[in-house]
Amino acid sequence: DSKLKIFTCNSNPKLAHQIADYIGIPMGESHTTSFSDGEIQVKLSESVRGCHVYIVQSTCGPVNDNLMELLVMVDALKRASAKSINVVIPYYGYARQDRKARSRDPITAKLVANLIEKAGAHRVITMDLHAMQIQGFFDIPVDHLLGVPILAQYFRSKQIQNPVVVSPDHGGVVRARKLADFLNAPLAIIDKRRPEPNVSEVMNIIGNIEGKTAILIDDIIDTAGTIVLGANALMEGGVKEVYACCTHPVLSGPAHERLENSPIKEIIVTDTIPIRSENPTSKLTVLSVAPLMGEAIIRVHEELSISKLFEIE
Amino acid sequence: DSKLKIFTCNSNPKLAHQIADYIGIPMGESHTTSFSDGEIQVKLSESVRGCHVYIVQSTCGPVNDNLMELLVMVDALKRASAKSINVVIPYYGYARQDRKARSRDPITAKLVANLIEKAGAHRVITMDLHAMQIQGFFDIPVDHLLGVPILAQYFRSKQIQNPVVVSPDHGGVVRARKLADFLNAPLAIIDKRRPEPNVSEVMNIIGNIEGKTAILIDDIIDTAGTIVLGANALMEGGVKEVYACCTHPVLSGPAHERLENSPIKEIIVTDTIPIRSENPTSKLTVLSVAPLMGEAIIRVHEELSISKLFEIE
Ligand SMILES: Nc1ncnc2c1ncn2[C@@H]1O[C@H](COP(=O)(O)O)[C@@H](O)[C@H]1O
Ligand SMILES: Nc1ncnc2c1ncn2[C@@H]1O[C@H](COP(=O)(O)O)[C@@H](O)[C@H]1O
Repeated sequence: DSKLKIFTCNSNPKLAHQIADYIGIPMGESHTTSFSDGEIQVKLSESVRGCHVYIVQSTCGPVNDNLMELLVMVDALKRASAKSINVVIPYYGYARQDRKARSRDPITAKLVANLIEKAGAHRVITMDLHAMQIQGFFDIPVDHLLGVPILAQYFRSKQIQNPVVVSPDHGGVVRARKLADFLNAPLAIIDKRRPEPNVSEVMNIIGNIEGKTAILIDDIIDTAGTIVLGANALMEGGVKEVYACCTHPVLSGPAHERLENSPIKEIIVTDTIPIRSENPTSKLTVLSVAPLMGEAIIRVHEELSISKLFEIE
Repeated sequence: DSKLKIFTCNSNPKLAHQIADYIGIPMGESHTTSFSDGEIQVKLSESVRGCHVYIVQSTCGPVNDNLMELLVMVDALKRASAKSINVVIPYYGYARQDRKARSRDPITAKLVANLIEKAGAHRVITMDLHAMQIQGFFDIPVDHLLGVPILAQYFRSKQIQNPVVVSPDHGGVVRARKLADFLNAPLAIIDKRRPEPNVSEVMNIIGNIEGKTAILIDDIIDTAGTIVLGANALMEGGVKEVYACCTHPVLSGPAHERLENSPIKEIIVTDTIPIRSENPTSKLTVLSVAPLMGEAIIRVHEELSISKLFEIE
């Protein structure tokens, strides 16, 4: 029974602290700062010799800094003789570069997996990977958690009448189906075409939506182009109102403004990525993944199955 | 006789173009940009199948972005079936994190070496590594070039009378000795203590400097604390005037202001790192390493010895 310790860097310290609180242990003491020239400096202020260490760090923006902080932290822990190094990556950046979409594309999601392993990680705990295949990019165990139960719980407590769950594209149907099952709701799909990255174009809606309350669900909301065009199409298609939800609120570029000016009534997200906009949309509701992550860490540490985490009562 | 191609990312495109000009080939066409959320996107616009590719990219600041650009470029070239991938890193960032100076320190220079190899590089060409041991961090060939001949050439052409070459610390004596040999000049050493990183304290000067023209030489000038305190000590010790030179002008934080206000007459650097200050010191002279790098690439590509590059006529 080796000791469990939680460390964090700078991407999402609030979530890390909430996870440590859930588990009931203090945060491991470390300091991740920069030298004058911007190079990362990691200082571990306590011994980790023989400990099972969990590093909580999302690779959200600034993605390269956050990734490098994680890698340097893994290196420091490895050289400080941690017994196992478990990286908890609530949001896994570069997940959309997961295949050669065009010839001569890099596959950066695989590169990142290789870097994390090479640095010395023994296990990854992550959430709602953009593509499930990314699990196979690792040769170490990957525990993959789902945000859908957390989102479902919230919508249940809202007691939405006559809901329809809508996937904004064909790639998201499995996720939307899960939410629909949790809510006992029907499913609809927006059949769209995307001419180039970060630009979306809505085509038509498959499924019956008229007069219903639509719940759009995606894994990531980035520039919010897809979700807002989806919401517009749903309104035109005759829904009563539109909610939108996702696990990972990337919310880059014009996202907040677009969401604010959209017909979306409320946007429900989780805290895998902190909201960093100076002018965030007033429509956001942020649900915490800390209990889920905390429970996952406890169960992994005690070598118990994590499958019960995918259920809701 | 496979084809030689040169690519670059965003750290130092000017140097890359000058290297390609020296070799007499056009730059390989590629575009390294960012998505809206800051993730790097690399596009190769021409085939590299069967080619020997050289990527010119310094890992200067923003160090994590520049490093990640390099890694993603290597990944893209690997998947596009380049025959060999040679990374030309004029300035190798994180080189000062090359050992466990304190317990539980990471060894980030080794981590970076591992990342570059894991991404798929076959060879490294670099210059004036902060510690020569970093060559041993790689399991692939490392060609290590020296800036001293370029600096020596410049000082010779200036025909400085009665020079003394000064090392700002004991770690730099080998480099200073080389410059002194080139210039037929005596050597002096500043015996200093450094209480913490980026802060220096000059102690006393070993060697005869009175009435001479001092040439301070270091591998890196970062915040310029060390070099300016050295120059002050030399002036107090009775030198006629002080020149300073280095290969890698990191010049972070207060560097430009400190150099401007210092007794240093002229600061001679190379273009391994571009000068990016909005208010650079007027004392800078920048020498190009493009001919050296270009010649090294030609010789490596033709499988010739690179040792002649360390001589001056
Ligand atoms: N950070 C990013 N932001 C926007 N688009 C991206 C990003 N990373 C990858 N992509 C593109 O998104 C597409 C993959 O998204 P998807 O089809 O939803 O899996 C590919 O065309 C990628 O080039
Ligand atoms: N980017 C950096 N800026 C300033 N100091 C650094 C940097 N990287 C490492 N160091 C520190 O510099 C020292 C090594 O420098 P040196 O003794 O000149 O090899 C170590 O104490 C490091 O902690």
